[in-house]
Amino acid sequence: MTLIELATKAKDAKYLVAGLTTEEKNSAILLVADKLEQNSETIIAANAIDMKNGEEKGLNPGLLDRLKLTEDRIKSMADGLRQVVALDDPIGQITESFTRPNGLEINKKLVPIGVVGVIYEARPNVTADVFGLCFKTGNVVVLKGGSDALESNKAIVKTIKAALTELKLPVDAITLIEDTSRESTKELMRLNGYIDVLIPRGGAGLIKSVVENASVPVIETGSGNCHIYVDHVADIDMAIDIIENAKTQRIGVCNACESLVIHEDIAAELLPKLNDRLRQHGVLVRADEKAKALMEGAEAATEQDFATEYLDYIISVKTVSSVEEAIAHINKNNTGHSESIITKDDANAKKFLNGIDAACVYVNASTRFTDGFEFGFGAEIGISTQKLHARGPMGLLALTSYKYTIYGNGQIRK
Amino acid sequence: MTLIELATKAKDAKYLVAGLTTEEKNSAILLVADKLEQNSETIIAANAIDMKNGEEKGLNPGLLDRLKLTEDRIKSMADGLRQVVALDDPIGQITESFTRPNGLEINKKLVPIGVVGVIYEARPNVTADVFGLCFKTGNVVVLKGGSDALESNKAIVKTIKAALTELKLPVDAITLIEDTSRESTKELMRLNGYIDVLIPRGGAGLIKSVVENASVPVIETGSGNCHIYVDHVADIDMAIDIIENAKTQRIGVCNACESLVIHEDIAAELLPKLNDRLRQHGVLVRADEKAKALMEGAEAATEQDFATEYLDYIISVKTVSSVEEAIAHINKNNTGHSESIITKDDANAKKFLNGIDAACVYVNASTRFTDGFEFGFGAEIGISTQKLHARGPMGLLALTSYKYTIYGNGQIRK
Repeated sequence: MTLIELATKAKDAKYLVAGLTTEEKNSAILLVADKLEQNSETIIAANAIDMKNGEEKGLNPGLLDRLKLTEDRIKSMADGLRQVVALDDPIGQITESFTRPNGLEINKKLVPIGVVGVIYEARPNVTADVFGLCFKTGNVVVLKGGSDALESNKAIVKTIKAALTELKLPVDAITLIEDTSRESTKELMRLNGYIDVLIPRGGAGLIKSVVENASVPVIETGSGNCHIYVDHVADIDMAIDIIENAKTQRIGVCNACESLVIHEDIAAELLPKLNDRLRQHGVLVRADEKAKALMEGAEAATEQDFATEYLDYIISVKTVSSVEEAIAHINKNNTGHSESIITKDDANAKKFLNGIDAACVYVNASTRFTDGFEFGFGAEIGISTQKLHARGPMGLLALTSYKYTIYGNGQIRK
Repeated sequence: MTLIELATKAKDAKYLVAGLTTEEKNSAILLVADKLEQNSETIIAANAIDMKNGEEKGLNPGLLDRLKLTEDRIKSMADGLRQVVALDDPIGQITESFTRPNGLEINKKLVPIGVVGVIYEARPNVTADVFGLCFKTGNVVVLKGGSDALESNKAIVKTIKAALTELKLPVDAITLIEDTSRESTKELMRLNGYIDVLIPRGGAGLIKSVVENASVPVIETGSGNCHIYVDHVADIDMAIDIIENAKTQRIGVCNACESLVIHEDIAAELLPKLNDRLRQHGVLVRADEKAKALMEGAEAATEQDFATEYLDYIISVKTVSSVEEAIAHINKNNTGHSESIITKDDANAKKFLNGIDAACVYVNASTRFTDGFEFGFGAEIGISTQKLHARGPMGLLALTSYKYTIYGNGQIRK
């Protein structure tokens, strides 16, 4: 089938899926979870083909690790789906209701977005994960996974479709685009009228390509050049613990700290101690002149360093002489993700919270908490770094739109 | 100045404008209103140049009428601004607040979107209107108005900047792009990192061009192929009054009815009477075979008619044999704007409300009520026909984003 034929089937299915009850949706997600576990041998066999191809192709160990499926990982996928079942279904909720002087009764009601396109890299767990979140919210998904995971994705999608068939639910609630060419990706990005929203999940290159080429609405996610600013008065031990955590607890994630901004009044006391701690983790420091003098082994930072999301054991350090300078530096270099101030000065904390342009702005905490589960949303489809629709961790609500249902008794406009 | 230099100034200004108090913003909007009235002679003189150029160029009377400014129209612009002052300022409101088990206190706070780009046609009143709504919500605007209104827009923007200067507020809160070339429009659409959202206001061609070419986030507005469906049991007089109103009360607007869908059981009773009423307004009917036989003077409709937003004294008529068929026909042809069912059958009303995919779905009322003022929002920046961010009439809230401000006391992620 051509992409447009697949998209037409997905669009037709969206009206059916939007009308399913919470019970129907939950039953399907639970059955998918069970079937994934039952079919784990088949799925692992398909995954073995992807792994072999990946090894022959020389994929790096990190990518191969994300690609690999095991019994345990399939169980995690299934458990993730079961957690989604336990969440409240937002669809159909009336969030506002008001009556106009002419008697029109206007209700604002949560509805599915419709057809959600997701473009992602070779992480087969995303396939089940995205299906669960989207189906729970009455959405249909069209998936374009990385070519390196094609066999794994096919096996997972086949399992999901088998569950839908068994329950006589629309099998086109999920579509995997098996044509992994760049042309088909570009075509998907321009399917206005079929795809209601496109969510890229992956590295900065993938996201940039989608933002630049898509004509359908996009939710930009994931890229995080996150800063921690240590103010002129701060608890030194707290600052060191938070920076260590945000930089080293997990380096490859978008809410990791990539850059330290430090007030000059506290630099001499903090930086040598911090340097000792960071060196225990093998973190490379790239610092401006003042900070470099206080951090043994540090390299000189370039302007480019301050704009870089390393996703590695590297941190940049910038010295400033005021909270205002820190805010300006961060607003110039950040990606609108997560920023934190470590301070004992309440007025400066307030300035930072108000002045920083980012989804999540922290006082005295690690940036690592920007996450749907840590926020208590019970799920996460991604972390939005744009201003429209959803910002920050996106739970089930980010997968909803609304419509106005309006009751009249013959009203006409004067 | 180049476009990128203008955009840089706008971006710098957004941090300042976001921090203004409601009082500062209101004072500025009020002063702009006063100054527009005081400078009306200068503005009308500038408008006269546009009008003269437009007449020489042979612009059609409708366009010339929208372009024309008079004392009265300038007073309306000023009064519109004064109404915006009277509205509540949503910025800074905390819409949610919760504490996590680890003690993190998370607040969701309404903030400006940032830099709002607006591309519009030769309607100089939009210039003041957009400034008022965006400034009230702490946003900065970058305007690209139609070339036919350039002198008028320059005079209005000069007046706005004079008010900002007098109050020592950032003059770059408003920027008019005076380069009216297509190249500069395309460049504007791709200024990611500078423009936070782009709102096209104008005809279908303008909106399509923005949707297809923009890489910055867009809110799609305005195109409305709106339907009225008359069900198998309905109040005939009510149906005729509503259809007359929705079709003829104002033909050039996006919430006007463009297509009638009628149940075959009621067609013979309704259509001849309706036809008489529509003919009083000179409405041309393009109908399918069954309906054509019941409506004297009707032409045969093509499939293309059912997908057309006429914005004219023309209506298409489609006969169906069930509410399900009506819903499928409408979902296939509509633009996601406004649809109405006229019925006495509550179960069918419910099916219609649930099944139709549109921003506003009515029971027994005219589609003409889809409007920010009619909804009681006190303002309208446009009517969104997309699913993301805002759907339907967009008031001040549609010009806000949110951020999470999070207070901790040393939390790190385990």
